[in-house]
Amino acid sequence: MSAQDAGNGVLTVENKEISSAVIKRLPRYHRYLGDLMAQGVERISSQELSVRMNVTASQIRQDLNNFGGFGQQGYGYNVAYLYQEISKILGLDHENSMVIIGCGNFGQALANYQNFENRGFVTKAIFDVNPEKVGTQVRGIPVLHTDELADFLHKNDIKIAVLTIPKEAAVEVTKVLVDCGIKAIWNFAHLDLDVPSDVVVENVHLSESLMQLSYRLAEAANKKK
Amino acid sequence: MSAQDAGNGVLTVENKEISSAVIKRLPRYHRYLGDLMAQGVERISSQELSVRMNVTASQIRQDLNNFGGFGQQGYGYNVAYLYQEISKILGLDHENSMVIIGCGNFGQALANYQNFENRGFVTKAIFDVNPEKVGTQVRGIPVLHTDELADFLHKNDIKIAVLTIPKEAAVEVTKVLVDCGIKAIWNFAHLDLDVPSDVVVENVHLSESLMQLSYRLAEAANKKK
Repeated sequence: MSAQDAGNGVLTVENKEISSAVIKRLPRYHRYLGDLMAQGVERISSQELSVRMNVTASQIRQDLNNFGGFGQQGYGYNVAYLYQEISKILGLDHENSMVIIGCGNFGQALANYQNFENRGFVTKAIFDVNPEKVGTQVRGIPVLHTDELADFLHKNDIKIAVLTIPKEAAVEVTKVLVDCGIKAIWNFAHLDLDVPSDVVVENVHLSESLMQLSYRLAEAANKKK
Repeated sequence: MSAQDAGNGVLTVENKEISSAVIKRLPRYHRYLGDLMAQGVERISSQELSVRMNVTASQIRQDLNNFGGFGQQGYGYNVAYLYQEISKILGLDHENSMVIIGCGNFGQALANYQNFENRGFVTKAIFDVNPEKVGTQVRGIPVLHTDELADFLHKNDIKIAVLTIPKEAAVEVTKVLVDCGIKAIWNFAHLDLDVPSDVVVENVHLSESLMQLSYRLAEAANKKK
């Protein structure tokens, strides 16, 4: 479910384009609200939330108004309710089954990271071409040969494919994923994937993130000179 | 070296604020130019580059003009030269020594990833509190106890600290890093770090990236209904 089909009368958005800046901020709201719940906070004003999150109260109200608001004048936000609604908007109210393609360092690290599972992101299989890895398991998740990927996708309802293979292999595997109807790719491979417009891709280019950091470090060092 | 102190007369920017959108795009230019070099391409026009990168030629020219331009009318860009200059701007022309704090799945994956080293990001030590890990090595890199972190930072010239520990432990470790003069933190811990303004932080919040993907997947599924 997302904002458009919640059907509970609270989410009133119909086919409205939400900006990618808002989408980027949603998981952060989710995180802060989860922390507040853990601290036993039951309700919070946009002012209090803005101090904690270091954004303006008006931005919080604007962001949440994209999905119908959730706040009540003079009361603020009910933390548990807002957390639950943002969970729904983020697609966390149902299981998102995944496959990981590439059983290298990062593929294994992702498979071992139990927190994803706690949020409904359940890895069903890992694929690799290395004969030493095929047939083994990572945290109980079977490692299959990449040749079996298409067959596996046809037989299982998989929502998200995670690509943690070298870029040379990623183009071919992406074709298989798209042909098998995968609509979401979490891409750690160091290239821009060429996919049809109905396939969503979220890139995690770690070396580019590290380069941004070293750019800003060099820039800051030069300012001081 | 960055744009401000290149001293070769090509980079003319002095204390000009470069927007974060431009900074985000720089590593992508670097990647495409590296690929072009690998393919033996010696020069390229902004038009040809724009087709490959799926951005407008005018954006490429604008982005690069922030740093002095690099192109010649009627010739285009010299690929190797532009690659080298962007490398300098990104701080890749010198070693950026790192420590990784947290020898869990991601800490180990990052330590094992040799490509960072090829770009000058050399991990000198990994820190953990787990007695089973302290004293071991990952790809030859020693795993030390987190109690030794401050002493290690005082004795070694470390530029970047990589945080791959649970958020509960991250606040305390960040204090140690800042006290020891670390000016750049690559943060995989799931919280927003509170650091002085002269410390740069680059966040990699993997679960937030995955939530953005599931949001867009749910949104796309709803559009089709």
